[in-house]
Amino acid sequence: MYGMIATWRMALEGVEAASELLKADADAGDALEKAIACVEDCEFYKSVGYGGLPNEEMEVELDAAFMDGNTLDIGCVGAVKDFANPIRIARQLSKEEVNNFLVGRGAEKYAQRHGFERKNMLTERAKIHYQNRVKELSQQQLKPYTGHDTVGMVCLDANAHMCAATSTSGLFMKRSGRLGDSPVIGSGLYVDSQVGGASATGLGEDVMKGCISYEIVRLMKEGKTPQEACDWAVRSFDAELRKRRGQAGDMSLIAMNNQGEWGVATNIDTFSFVVATAQQPATVYLAKRDAQGKTTYEKASKEWIEEYVQTRKAPAKLKE
Amino acid sequence: MYGMIATWRMALEGVEAASELLKADADAGDALEKAIACVEDCEFYKSVGYGGLPNEEMEVELDAAFMDGNTLDIGCVGAVKDFANPIRIARQLSKEEVNNFLVGRGAEKYAQRHGFERKNMLTERAKIHYQNRVKELSQQQLKPYTGHDTVGMVCLDANAHMCAATSTSGLFMKRSGRLGDSPVIGSGLYVDSQVGGASATGLGEDVMKGCISYEIVRLMKEGKTPQEACDWAVRSFDAELRKRRGQAGDMSLIAMNNQGEWGVATNIDTFSFVVATAQQPATVYLAKRDAQGKTTYEKASKEWIEEYVQTRKAPAKLKE
Repeated sequence: MYGMIATWRMALEGVEAASELLKADADAGDALEKAIACVEDCEFYKSVGYGGLPNEEMEVELDAAFMDGNTLDIGCVGAVKDFANPIRIARQLSKEEVNNFLVGRGAEKYAQRHGFERKNMLTERAKIHYQNRVKELSQQQLKPYTGHDTVGMVCLDANAHMCAATSTSGLFMKRSGRLGDSPVIGSGLYVDSQVGGASATGLGEDVMKGCISYEIVRLMKEGKTPQEACDWAVRSFDAELRKRRGQAGDMSLIAMNNQGEWGVATNIDTFSFVVATAQQPATVYLAKRDAQGKTTYEKASKEWIEEYVQTRKAPAKLKE
Repeated sequence: MYGMIATWRMALEGVEAASELLKADADAGDALEKAIACVEDCEFYKSVGYGGLPNEEMEVELDAAFMDGNTLDIGCVGAVKDFANPIRIARQLSKEEVNNFLVGRGAEKYAQRHGFERKNMLTERAKIHYQNRVKELSQQQLKPYTGHDTVGMVCLDANAHMCAATSTSGLFMKRSGRLGDSPVIGSGLYVDSQVGGASATGLGEDVMKGCISYEIVRLMKEGKTPQEACDWAVRSFDAELRKRRGQAGDMSLIAMNNQGEWGVATNIDTFSFVVATAQQPATVYLAKRDAQGKTTYEKASKEWIEEYVQTRKAPAKLKE
C-alpha cells in the first residue's frame, strides 16, 4: 500500500506527481519533497512559496517543516526569505545531528552555505494584493489578518515508511518574524511510521494551543481510525477554545495511518483536500462541518475545480 | 493552595521571590514573570539570559515562552539578541490577538517598539568560556554541543490560575538562528488551569520529537498524579528514542497539577529542581534515574548547594 493526503486543492498537481513516484516504489520522503516543492513553485497559490503573500513590510517570509516517521528526525525553518524551496531546507536540516530548527538570518545562512536556490519570492501579483490590502485597511474595510492556507501532507510509501511536511508563507500582513504552527512539530505536523501522521492548516496561533497533530496521531495509536481521531480531536479542541476564549480560529486537519486509511476534520464551511492511494488516483474532496460539528465530505465537482483554477489564475488588478 | 516548581538549582532565588508574591495573593503570571526574570538577570547562570553562553558566532541568542492556563494564551520569542528579559517580551506577546510567536529581527523590532530593556547580554565570563571552547574544539577534545539548562517553571496561584514559562540561551555553540524546545508550546511547556502544567529541559531537538510537556499534562488529565505522568512520559519516550535512534538526548521534566501536587522525571544522573508551595518553603531537590528507569529524588544537602554556588561564581579563566 502507498498513499498521500494533503491540505487544499492547491496540492493536486504535487500529489499527482508524487503518486507516480510512489507507484514506482519511491521513498516517502522523496515523494513528499517533490509534492511540496511543486506547490511552492506555483505562482498562483497565495499562501505557499513563490507568489505567497507578504508580511506587513511587504516581505515574503516562509515557514516549512519535515518529519520522518521512522527515526522521528525533524527539520524546521521559520521566517526565511528569498529561497525557492523552504521544504528542501527543512528536509536537509532533518539530517543534521542537532540544530534542526533554524529561523531568520541564521536559517538563510545555512541555506546559502548548502547551495539552496535563491529566488526573489515576491511576485507582481503578490505586490498588487499587498497594495490593495493597504488601501482597504486605510479605509477600514476589514481585519488585517486573513489567509492561512498552509500546504500540509502525510505520505506512506510501499515500504511502510511515513513522512509528513508543511510549507507556508503564513498569515497575509503578519508581523515580521512571525511563526505559525507550520514549523512547529506536534502542532503543524506529526508522524510516526508505526501509527500514522497528521497535519494542520488554519490559524496557527490557535492550532499551537492544542498540539493537535500530535493528539491525532496519539488517538490513532490508541486504536481510533484516522477519521475518528480527526473528528474527536478537532471537535473537542474547537469546543475547548470556544469555552475558554469565546471563539476558535479556523482549523482543518488531515490524517493517514500506516495502512493508507485516511481522515479529515474541519471547523469551517469549505475545506478542500487531496487524496491519492494505490487504489485511487489523486482526487479532490470538499469537507465541511455539519450542524452537529461532525465533518462530512464529498468529491469536488469538475465545475468546482475549474472555477478554482480560473479564480486563482485571474489577473490581479490594482484597486482604485 | 499555591505552588511553583522549576528546573535546576539556578531557579532558587527566583522561586523564593515569587513564592513571597504568591503568599500575598499575587497572580500566577506576575509571580512567574518575576521568577524567570530573576534567573535571566543573574550573570552566573550560563544558559539563561544575561551571562548565557553564545552561539558559534559569539552572539547570545535567547528563547523564551509564556502560556496562560486559563485562556491558553501563548507568547513565544526565539533567537532574540540584546534584550534583558526575553520572558517579558514573551508574556507581552501572549496578550496579542495574533502574531504571538516572533523570532529574530522581527521579535527584536517588536520588543524595541514596546520599550523593553536593551542590554548587551554577552558577559566577559561568557566570552572566556567561548574562547576556551574554540581552543578545545581546535584540539578536538570534545563534542561541540553541550549545556542546555533551560529554566522552566509551572506556577499555581491561590485563585487556581496556572501559568508556565521557559527561558534559555540554548545550546552553547549552536548555529545562528537555532531554536530548541523552549519556545515551542507542547514541547518546552504546556499548561491548563483545569489540569496542571509541565516544562522541559534537555536536548531540545529530542524533546520536540515527543511533545512531552503536552503529553504529561494530558496524562494528568486522564487522572495520573504529576509523578506518575512524568515517570510514564519520560520513561516511554526515552525508550522509544533509544529504539528508533540508538540514543536519547538528556531530558528532565517537571510538573504540577492544580492541587499543588508535583512530580519530576529525568533520564540523567543529576537533575536539580526547586519546589515551593503554601506548605513548604522553596526547596532544592536532586533527582536521578535508578536502574529500573524510575526517577528518585532527595533534598539537596547544604554542602551540595554551597558547592554549586561556589562553582558558578568561581572566576572564569582563559585556558592556555
